[in-house]
Amino acid sequence: MTGRLYGVGTGPGDPELMTLKAARLIREAPVVARFCKAGRLGNAGTTVAGLMRADVVVEELAYPVTTELPLHSDAYRSRITAFYEESAARIATHLAAGRDVVVLSEGDPLFYGSYMHLHRRLAGRFPVEVVPGVTGMAACWAAAGVPIAQGEDVLCVLPGTLGEDALAERLAGADAAVIMKVGGNLPKIRRALARAGRLDDALYVERGSQPGQQVMPLAERDADLPAPYFSIILLPGWQDAALARAEAAE
Amino acid sequence: MTGRLYGVGTGPGDPELMTLKAARLIREAPVVARFCKAGRLGNAGTTVAGLMRADVVVEELAYPVTTELPLHSDAYRSRITAFYEESAARIATHLAAGRDVVVLSEGDPLFYGSYMHLHRRLAGRFPVEVVPGVTGMAACWAAAGVPIAQGEDVLCVLPGTLGEDALAERLAGADAAVIMKVGGNLPKIRRALARAGRLDDALYVERGSQPGQQVMPLAERDADLPAPYFSIILLPGWQDAALARAEAAE
Repeated sequence: MTGRLYGVGTGPGDPELMTLKAARLIREAPVVARFCKAGRLGNAGTTVAGLMRADVVVEELAYPVTTELPLHSDAYRSRITAFYEESAARIATHLAAGRDVVVLSEGDPLFYGSYMHLHRRLAGRFPVEVVPGVTGMAACWAAAGVPIAQGEDVLCVLPGTLGEDALAERLAGADAAVIMKVGGNLPKIRRALARAGRLDDALYVERGSQPGQQVMPLAERDADLPAPYFSIILLPGWQDAALARAEAAE
Repeated sequence: MTGRLYGVGTGPGDPELMTLKAARLIREAPVVARFCKAGRLGNAGTTVAGLMRADVVVEELAYPVTTELPLHSDAYRSRITAFYEESAARIATHLAAGRDVVVLSEGDPLFYGSYMHLHRRLAGRFPVEVVPGVTGMAACWAAAGVPIAQGEDVLCVLPGTLGEDALAERLAGADAAVIMKVGGNLPKIRRALARAGRLDDALYVERGSQPGQQVMPLAERDADLPAPYFSIILLPGWQDAALARAEAAE
């Protein structure tokens, strides 16, 4: 009997925004694995601290330090591929010995996450199950209290790492948008929003559902202030937005 | 002291995919409200059955029957606006009397949901809180076990009610896509996917996380078979898709 691999979404940060199923699987798991920066707990690790079995085996999958390598270089690709191979092999050892393994994933495991690199290396050889989670972006629009999309709205999710032209073009064509991976890309994102004529509609949300949560119109935020990587820009849709504003003004 | 309004996401259908916070709020709530078709429990209602207090007051907000009215007509708009007004008034009565009200929302309250119509009518007058939930689409890609988006992928969420031209154009420009509200729109969606050259990448998912869940390549599904409204089409992204396929073939 081999063990079962679970890719488990731990949600956006607030431990109460984990699903009942995620909490149960984490409590029961003999082995819990998590991606993290070398020597740091990682957000998903922080979220589940205190839930795990006393005798749990924790596998820390620490990303290799690669800041010296360009992101699209062969050298980077080969380092990161070797890392995923080695991580999958560590987990396969537990599974082959009959131990279930829960891999923690911030947000949702298959939505811009690292879990998929393990999933596709192990899914053919062992039983696997993915447990979806609340995404960070959902915590951000809940914090802002704005309907992100409604009716026939088209919603685009855009990585902030895209070039300014690509961002501006996508933003001009979207009813609603979420821009992720903001951080140092914020000045570029601001310019793209302005070019698309959407800067005044944009909301800035930092640490959605976590201590220190902040929500504000992007246009009112100090342009020189750095933003953390996990901040998000929301461009709420709503086909009836004009109607809503009219009603709100009554 | 007035009560507090909670817009609570109940997740994609499997009761275990509710968040810990949603379950707690539903267990504690003196009043639980839910949107439903007249005389039917509604998916969110089914999900929470058994959690609620014995003395809970349930407010059923039954959509008026409007199938005889065109969706974009003034008559429809005025009927549905009156319905939301009346629903907000019913909830306001409880809040004004100091009773907290939990409004159940399938999936996430602010992601293509009806809750927002109550939120924007009540948020100025009473304390409100939105509790995000796992979306139906996340349950579908978890069921399929495919990474929906990764790295610099742009993800587009498209309502299947859009016209064929608009769908084809959006699909051609997206790295990854989710098409919601499929149902009777499926033949049109199929044509749009074919025009965008993406039919062979598309997955069909029905009842994600619920009994009777089905996942299959859309191209292999009998084109004459009707699809339920809550079925979903996934077009997985992943910038490394070609690499992944090459590795999988090794």
